[in-house]
Parts: sequence; C-alpha cells; structure tokens
Amino acid sequence: MQFKITEELLELVQELIETQDDKALKHLLKDYHYADVAEILNDLELEDALYVIKLLDSETTSDILTELDEDIREKVLQNLSAKEIAEEIQELDTDDAADIIAELPISRQHEVISKIEDEDHKAEIQELLTYDEDTAGGLMAKELVKVYETWTVAGCLRRIRGQAENVTRVHSVYVVDKKNKLIGRLSLKDLITAKSDQKIADIYISTVDSVYVDEDVEEVAKIMAKYDLEAIPVVDRNKTLLGRITIDDIIDVIKEEADKDYQLAAGISQDVEADDSILQLTRARIPWLALGLLGGIGAFLIMEGFQESFSKYAVLFFFTPLIAAMAGNVGVQSSAIIVQGLANDDVKGSINSRLIKEMLLAALNGAILALFLFLFVFFYNGDLLTAIAISVSLVAVIVVAGLVGTFVPLFLDKRGIDPAIATGPFITTSNDIFGILIYFLIAKLILGF
Amino acid sequence: MQFKITEELLELVQELIETQDDKALKHLLKDYHYADVAEILNDLELEDALYVIKLLDSETTSDILTELDEDIREKVLQNLSAKEIAEEIQELDTDDAADIIAELPISRQHEVISKIEDEDHKAEIQELLTYDEDTAGGLMAKELVKVYETWTVAGCLRRIRGQAENVTRVHSVYVVDKKNKLIGRLSLKDLITAKSDQKIADIYISTVDSVYVDEDVEEVAKIMAKYDLEAIPVVDRNKTLLGRITIDDIIDVIKEEADKDYQLAAGISQDVEADDSILQLTRARIPWLALGLLGGIGAFLIMEGFQESFSKYAVLFFFTPLIAAMAGNVGVQSSAIIVQGLANDDVKGSINSRLIKEMLLAALNGAILALFLFLFVFFYNGDLLTAIAISVSLVAVIVVAGLVGTFVPLFLDKRGIDPAIATGPFITTSNDIFGILIYFLIAKLILGF
Repeated sequence: MQFKITEELLELVQELIETQDDKALKHLLKDYHYADVAEILNDLELEDALYVIKLLDSETTSDILTELDEDIREKVLQNLSAKEIAEEIQELDTDDAADIIAELPISRQHEVISKIEDEDHKAEIQELLTYDEDTAGGLMAKELVKVYETWTVAGCLRRIRGQAENVTRVHSVYVVDKKNKLIGRLSLKDLITAKSDQKIADIYISTVDSVYVDEDVEEVAKIMAKYDLEAIPVVDRNKTLLGRITIDDIIDVIKEEADKDYQLAAGISQDVEADDSILQLTRARIPWLALGLLGGIGAFLIMEGFQESFSKYAVLFFFTPLIAAMAGNVGVQSSAIIVQGLANDDVKGSINSRLIKEMLLAALNGAILALFLFLFVFFYNGDLLTAIAISVSLVAVIVVAGLVGTFVPLFLDKRGIDPAIATGPFITTSNDIFGILIYFLIAKLILGF
Repeated sequence: MQFKITEELLELVQELIETQDDKALKHLLKDYHYADVAEILNDLELEDALYVIKLLDSETTSDILTELDEDIREKVLQNLSAKEIAEEIQELDTDDAADIIAELPISRQHEVISKIEDEDHKAEIQELLTYDEDTAGGLMAKELVKVYETWTVAGCLRRIRGQAENVTRVHSVYVVDKKNKLIGRLSLKDLITAKSDQKIADIYISTVDSVYVDEDVEEVAKIMAKYDLEAIPVVDRNKTLLGRITIDDIIDVIKEEADKDYQLAAGISQDVEADDSILQLTRARIPWLALGLLGGIGAFLIMEGFQESFSKYAVLFFFTPLIAAMAGNVGVQSSAIIVQGLANDDVKGSINSRLIKEMLLAALNGAILALFLFLFVFFYNGDLLTAIAISVSLVAVIVVAGLVGTFVPLFLDKRGIDPAIATGPFITTSNDIFGILIYFLIAKLILGF
C-alpha cells in the first residue's frame, strides 16, 4: 500500500534500462502511480530517467513530469525537443501545462507553444501564462464543468458526460448565465438526486464562493482552508467565469509557504533542499551568515569601546554570551509568535496594545530568569553590585528584545512586506547588538565606570 | 466575497444581543457562513457568544462550534448542559462529534454520550473515541458511501440517493464485498457516465489507496498530498472498511504540523497563539529560555576558565559574541534544512555521506567568512597571530556547528523522536558552548597561552 523505494527496485530498473528490456520495463512501471515513478526517476542518472520518459507514452509521462523534482525536471526538459515537450503539454491540464512551460527559458516557450496542435488548449495555456504566478490566475486551470441555467437536469447530465471527460475531478458544477457570468453552483450529488425534468434555474445554489483572478495565492489558500472548499471558481471583476483552483494545488501552496517561512526563520534565503549542490546551498546560506558576521563585528566594537573597565570588571565580559543569547532567544520567540499569528489571521487589535502585552510578558519572564541569574552571580562571584548590574541588565535586555521581536514583523506587515523576513538571523543579530549595548550601558550606570 | 469582521458589525451584533432582538439577530447571521459566524463569536464576550449559540438552531450552531477558537469553545461547552451538547453532537459528522466530545473532561464525556438519542450515531462516535487522536482512526469519519459489487449501476444510484443525504461530500464511492472488505472504488462521474444496467463488479476500479487505522496522521497527510487525493478510506488489517478521511481534515493536520515545527524552531514548547494569556505564553516560552540561561552560564564558566590570558589577549574575549553567534546561525541553518527535508521525505542516503557533505559545505562557508574576518582583525588589531587564531577558530567552529546541526536531527529521527526538537534554542545553546570552547582551545594552541 505504501510505496517505498528500495535499492533492489532501483537496481532492477537500472538493469532493465541497461539491457534495453523495454517490454519488462513498461510492465514493471505500469502498476506504479505516476508520483511513485517520479520518485524512482528522481533517483536515477539523468540519461536513465530520459530513457524511461522517452519509452513511456505521453499520457503517462506528462503526469510524471509534473511530479519530478524541480531541478531534475529542468534537466529533462533541456534534453527533450520542443515537439516532444509539446506532446507532453497536450496531455496535461492547463494549469500544469502552463506551469511547465513557464519553467522554460522564454525562447523555448514560444517554440514549444507553437508546436501545440490543439488550438483551444494552446489558447488557454497562453491565457494562463499572462497571469502572475502568485495570483489565483497563475494557479487556476481552465478545465471545469459549467452549465447554463436554462438547461434541464437531464440535459445537464447528458452534456456533463461530454465535458467531464476532460475534467479529472468535477467537484461542483458551475452555473452561468448566457454572458458566462458565474451565478451559482451544483454538486454532482444534487444532480443525481434531482428529478430529470427540473430546470437548473430552479435547483442551483446561488451562494457560491469565488476569488478574483488577481487575488494573492496565500489569500486563496486561507479562504479554501477556512470554508473547507475543495475547489473554487476564479472570476474577473465582471464575475465572468475564468477558471478553477482545486485543493491539491492549494496544499502545495500551503506547504511551500510553510517551508519558506521556516527557511527564513533559519536564515536561508532561497528555496533549497538537503540534496542540492554545495554551491546552491552556499548561495542560500551565506547572505544571512555574512549579516551575522557583521553583527559580531559590531558587538566586538561595542565591547572594545568599554575595555577600560576590563581589568576591574572582567566578569562582565564573561557574561556577554549569556546576554546576547537571551536577547536572541527572546527575540526569536516573540517574532515567531507574531509571524505565525499574522499567517493564521490571529493577530487582531492595535500594535500598541500588543507591544504593551509583550513588554509585560518579557518583564515577567525576564524577572524570573534574572532572579536565578542574580542568585548564581552573587553566590559565585560575591559582589552584590555586580550581581545586581548583570541581573537588571538581563531584564532590560529581555524586554527590549521582546519589543523588537514583536514590533518589527508587525511594522513590516503593515507596510506590505513579508514579516517572515524579520525572523531568524535578522532578529538574533540585531538583538545581539542591542543587548550587548544595553548591557554595558546599564552596568556602567550601576557600577559607575 | 471576502468576509472581514468590522467594528460596525461587531457593535451591531452586540447591540442586537443587548436588546434581545432575536428576529433581527437571526436574520443578520443566517447569511453568513458558519466559519464567519464563529469568527464573530470569537470576538464577543462569552455571555454574548452563549446567547447567540442558544438562540440559533443546533444544525447551525454545531458547525459554528467546530470552528470556534479552541479556548473559547472550551468555555462555551462548560456553559452548556450535557443535553444541549448532545443536541449539537447529533448534528455533526462523526469525526467532528468525536473531536468535540474528546475535548470534554472524562466525566462529562460519559454524560453527554449517554444523552445522544441516535443509537447508531452514538455507537459510531464511541468507536472513534477508542482510537489515538494522532492516527488515521482518530481523524476519520464514519460517514461514507459504499456499494456492494453485486449491485447494478441503477440500483447504486437509487441507494446512493439514500446514503448520500448524510454525506456532505461524496468523492469516491467505495466498493466492498459481502464481508465489508474494501475491494475498489468508483467516482460519481463514473456512475453517471455508465449504463444503468451494468454491474458494479464490471466497472469499479480495483486499485484503491487506503490507510490502516493505526497509521500516523503525518503519514496520511503525506500520502494524500503526494497522490493528490481528496479522500482516503481507512481499513483495518483485514481490509475491512472502517471510515474515511477527507482532505479538509488533512489541511488542518498540515497546518498544525507546520505551526508546531515553526514554534519548536523558535523555542516555544506548547501550542500558543499571540492572543493567549501572559501566563500561558510564559509557560510555553520559559523552558527554552531557562535552557538558554543555563547555556549562558556554561559559556561564562568556560570563559572564566581561560581568564589568565585575559590581560594579554583581551581582544579574544571581545570576539566571543561573534563566534557564538556564527555557531548558532550555522547550526540553525543546518538543522532547519535537515528537519524540513525529513518532513518532506527528501532526505535519502546514509547519514555519513550527509555529514561529509555538510562538513565540506561548512568548510567552504567558514573559509569565505573567515577570510573577511581575518582581514578585519588584521587591519584593525595589527597582530598577525591573533588574526589567524580568530579566523581559524571561526572555520573550526562553523564546521563543528554544521555537523552538530546536521547530525542531531538525523540521530533523533532514526530513533523515532521528532527531529524538530533539535532546532531553535536547543541547537543555538549547545553550539554556543561548543563554539566558545573550541574557540578558546584553538586560540590557546595558536597563541600559546
């Protein structure tokens, strides 16, 4: 039931390719779901993967193509002729077809499109390519089942048999008026349970959720998740029915969004995977590490600036990693809660009330931790004033770190910038610097140097 | 089209509640989707929310209940009698019903269950409650449409009309043998397009994905996302059809899983939201902060151990925040990539090859950053040996941090422990300590103190 790639399976496939035993290869692969065949191809050498793709028919390989790892698909496409790619495109739903074409270099795109034989399919794909990929238009497919309100149930079912051949999952049947404007919907269940001579106009449901073609995909995902929708029609501002987004595409959007936020929080600036090349991984990781390095140099300069107090208060310097670490941890916690809250639409109320709440929370957490730190420093070090200086600094640093971690994402979000950028190394680095600065200023104040 | 709560709407609702204008209130709310009404109730005072729930009929309020914020639902349920809760339960699908009952204290659970009038519904809910909530059994619903292979298409459609009343979304129709074992499936589309006198046995699809009732929900989510499924039947080890999981529940699982991983990476140990109380937030945040504090004290002790070198090499101590920060950043990046890769099933190959790759990657990144650091220290400080000591330490620290960040999640995963625990403060704190220790040891070696 669960498919797992095994060494044996891979070796078998490689053997069959080597001996060019096409019959056995086809027989072996035909029982696997295309997503599983894609997994197998991901693990083969490029030439072996190409061998399989050219061996199997387009109807099978087109689906496999959509499931391949992005980097591997890129190489595969480079090794197929425009005609061969067009043949795959013919077999795909318009949303997948448009996605694959969009991955090609512009020059190849025109070439491939020109080789698509089905004029309707070509026109629909070209329309989809005009939409921004992060909008509903860029996610939708043109395949859907629509009926006119003037039809009867019997007439509907008859025509659906025709339309539905091209539609993998029907979900709702959309009802339009004669100008093609979306006016309602029906489920297949409704059609089956209705009397065959009833008019569509009498039985359709007029409340139908829809999204505008320029809506952000994250908004679409929120709407579909909130209302438990499996498909949603896409319309223009005149309510003309343009296409449909299905839940499987939304799941991909949700996962990609979560992955992106997670990577930003870890200071990885591009979409990378564990199996990418060392060069790709370096390109994604170095930027934020460089920022951290600059921050560290900033911290160095601050500490150097206070070095006259060194001989007398060396212990202060030994606690800087602790102060910096706490500032970083608190900042990361605060920003993560805000960013997550914004993503789930849980953040209401004014920024001010939120900052006040964070200040109280940070003060409470800081006081608890500072108490323990005070006891440790006092009993270990002996000097009361030093213990007070370090503990008071900790509370101050935690409060400031919490406020920064809360404020920055909210500020970015209000300006339309992705708040997830203000997580991870950005927050830890800036909080390190603030923290160390505040620490020494307070220590200077209390200890009088 | 898009619902947004406005101040005016909330005030209007509150006003109608105050004046007990039931008719107007019902009229206002009946046009809103239950998920939107739940959003409104989330923002009302508890007594106002209760007023609305008692006012509307159970069919509406039951769905609203499932969409309420968890904490608010808890308070609402506390204020409803067992009989009232049972009335809501009657209206819900078995999976939602079981979820709500499971949220009650055990004593109340028995009371509410005893008041459910429909014996079948009660038995089904009781069965669902026996399953672990993190398994397919805990997620599934008993509502589904099944047909026997001996029926005809016409007979099928006739009976589906009866069964389908209770099933919100039919998706696939499941085909069973006379022992109720799952043997195949049909889509409604297939049924509509088939001839009415054909036997089910001749037209059903025998390849049908299914999951075992004890399968982990994350595995179920992966399977449904991979194969683009919208519903999947749940069976026991004898292939007896037990229930069905629909995609909307899986979306919730995916989002909760992503939220949980994100919170762990930020050092938040419980499921909290931005609007939770200061006490709840403190309880979730303090544990990891306490760990960070202990780590900071560890770093203090290490630095103190090297303090004889202080007077001569004060500059070393000024760079400790930089070293600790870089160790933390690199460790977080490495662990995030591994954890994400494990979640997406992208991590293949042996642990050893992955560690070697990480070592090369970290050495490359470390060398690039160390070069810049060397130049800064040399031109700012002047002493060649010091610059070399600090730069070499940086490379060593980055390599070790990368290896730790890669190894620990893989190690935990192989032992069946959630690798996401080894992200965030756990990694930064341990890498801080390793980093500072390695730094001073290398510096001691190179500078000879």
